[in-house]
Amino acid sequence: MAKAWHLTSRPQGLPTHDNFALRDLPDAPLEKDQLRVRNLWLSVDPYMRGRMNDAKSYAASFQIDQPMTGGAIGEVVESRMEGFAPGDLILHMAGWRDGGVIGLDMMPNKLPAEALAAGMTPQTFLHNMGLTGGTAWIGLLRIASAKPGDTVFVSAAAGAVGSAVVQIAKAREMTVIGSAGGAEKCEWALDLGADAVVDYKAGPVLPQLAAALERLGKPGIDVYFDNVGGEHLDAAFATANDFARFAICGMIDVYNDGKAQEMKYLIRTIPARIRMEGFIYTDQFIECMEEFYADMGGLIASGAVTMRETVHEGLEATTDAFLGLFAGANMGKMLVRI
Amino acid sequence: MAKAWHLTSRPQGLPTHDNFALRDLPDAPLEKDQLRVRNLWLSVDPYMRGRMNDAKSYAASFQIDQPMTGGAIGEVVESRMEGFAPGDLILHMAGWRDGGVIGLDMMPNKLPAEALAAGMTPQTFLHNMGLTGGTAWIGLLRIASAKPGDTVFVSAAAGAVGSAVVQIAKAREMTVIGSAGGAEKCEWALDLGADAVVDYKAGPVLPQLAAALERLGKPGIDVYFDNVGGEHLDAAFATANDFARFAICGMIDVYNDGKAQEMKYLIRTIPARIRMEGFIYTDQFIECMEEFYADMGGLIASGAVTMRETVHEGLEATTDAFLGLFAGANMGKMLVRI
Repeated sequence: MAKAWHLTSRPQGLPTHDNFALRDLPDAPLEKDQLRVRNLWLSVDPYMRGRMNDAKSYAASFQIDQPMTGGAIGEVVESRMEGFAPGDLILHMAGWRDGGVIGLDMMPNKLPAEALAAGMTPQTFLHNMGLTGGTAWIGLLRIASAKPGDTVFVSAAAGAVGSAVVQIAKAREMTVIGSAGGAEKCEWALDLGADAVVDYKAGPVLPQLAAALERLGKPGIDVYFDNVGGEHLDAAFATANDFARFAICGMIDVYNDGKAQEMKYLIRTIPARIRMEGFIYTDQFIECMEEFYADMGGLIASGAVTMRETVHEGLEATTDAFLGLFAGANMGKMLVRI
Repeated sequence: MAKAWHLTSRPQGLPTHDNFALRDLPDAPLEKDQLRVRNLWLSVDPYMRGRMNDAKSYAASFQIDQPMTGGAIGEVVESRMEGFAPGDLILHMAGWRDGGVIGLDMMPNKLPAEALAAGMTPQTFLHNMGLTGGTAWIGLLRIASAKPGDTVFVSAAAGAVGSAVVQIAKAREMTVIGSAGGAEKCEWALDLGADAVVDYKAGPVLPQLAAALERLGKPGIDVYFDNVGGEHLDAAFATANDFARFAICGMIDVYNDGKAQEMKYLIRTIPARIRMEGFIYTDQFIECMEEFYADMGGLIASGAVTMRETVHEGLEATTDAFLGLFAGANMGKMLVRI
């Protein structure tokens, strides 16, 4: 019998294990336009925290005592859906579970056979060829209009989105400064090609960012890709060149605490004519998916864009994986292997 | 002998009379490409505060012990500049003085004879047909892409820029909520056509803004035109509809104190996909001046856009006028008549 993680109470602040319970899913015969799947990989992502609130947000709230959802890679076990056959590998939204019956609302899509044949792993469609890689690509190139020669600052540069931003920017001949927490993550950001790093655990962000710009001989940043908010965002305002563009992807610093952000340099929006824009992958994806798959597929095939995976084993470990996102426990993409 | 206000020391925080001194200008024979002018009207504007700092800003800093500059309307007394003759009324940048010799660097432009013949006052080119009206028009229509049907929130709605924003927005069939300090200014904002007002001196901004939206049956704001920053900006983040656009024109709340802004709702940038952009009139003006003059001239001629002037008499009163901007002493455009 399939099991799924259910939300049992809404987190106040940082989520804990007490907010979740692993429960059996009801079994049912397969109806028309349904698939029975066995999940292989589950994605956990920071945006899911927002869906645990009751508040109006960009994705519908998770409901109490209902199974949660999220990106997953599964294998079709039984099919009454046209175009799908047992053995097919699919990307779908019925994550947080080891399998079960899914319908069209879970947006099943077969993984492209050519990509798999060329050696791309299935879980790549949960990161560089999926939500996190797409978020990086859209935010950097479309929202922030980053172009060769720009100086780019990216926070959470050793995270799933941030590490993709670093590599896409380097492939496009930009100068990149990445921020990450701790020596190991900073080292990896440099391995990915970052020209300089800021270790936010080692001291305040702004002086480190200013020193990195000086070392690189750059007067300021042209682009900021924000995954963090707070002190990082304020440092970006402080160092922005004229007509800088900020793509605001996440503010993991403030998802849980709800406190006011102290913005000392926000006023530079005017003299520097900064454009700051929040965005969500799903708004933009349909319009650019063809271009994204072609471009990102090429960058991955050439080795220009790689990914490290932090893998938790087994459905039981899903909440550990999710909670780890807010403790900075992941290098690259946080995944659960069933 | 002409006199001009000189900056004698850089203000720390709020400027005071001690930062300025009225001094004689050296007299000189007129050289080629120079005009001798007698000023009639001087403009004082909040942006001038930024030019009193030594810091890099969008306009060059005023220099200590040098005469200050700014928008002015003058009459040509003597001309060695092609195209100008005694008696011409001109707009130029040699303000903060009662007259003197000016060159091409002060950007003299003759006021259009047709507009004057049609009854437009010369000082209109210091407000609705000049810097403040142009700032309102560019920020609302170009930076914030406001369109008919939008709900617009504008701070400092009884100021020179804000009052123009209210009227342009109403002429374009938008719903407008204006914020101003005190009953008299709020009353004027309503007279200008605002659908609702927020009196920031009467209580916190956000509850008043939320109540106004509810009364008007609007779910939130589509556009925020910011002249103020701080609490007003945070209230705009709190009430922004999806894909709201913020044109950041000024942050008079924080020009002087340099304190951090406490932004509790900045995080809504992401779920609401807010676009915030700082802008400066002079960046945009050249490209759109023809369209601006035609459109704004029509709105003024039809009576759709009007202006109240708060007039101080005599060059000696210039610093009073300027300092009054930061005490909310002006209704509409603050001017000095020589």
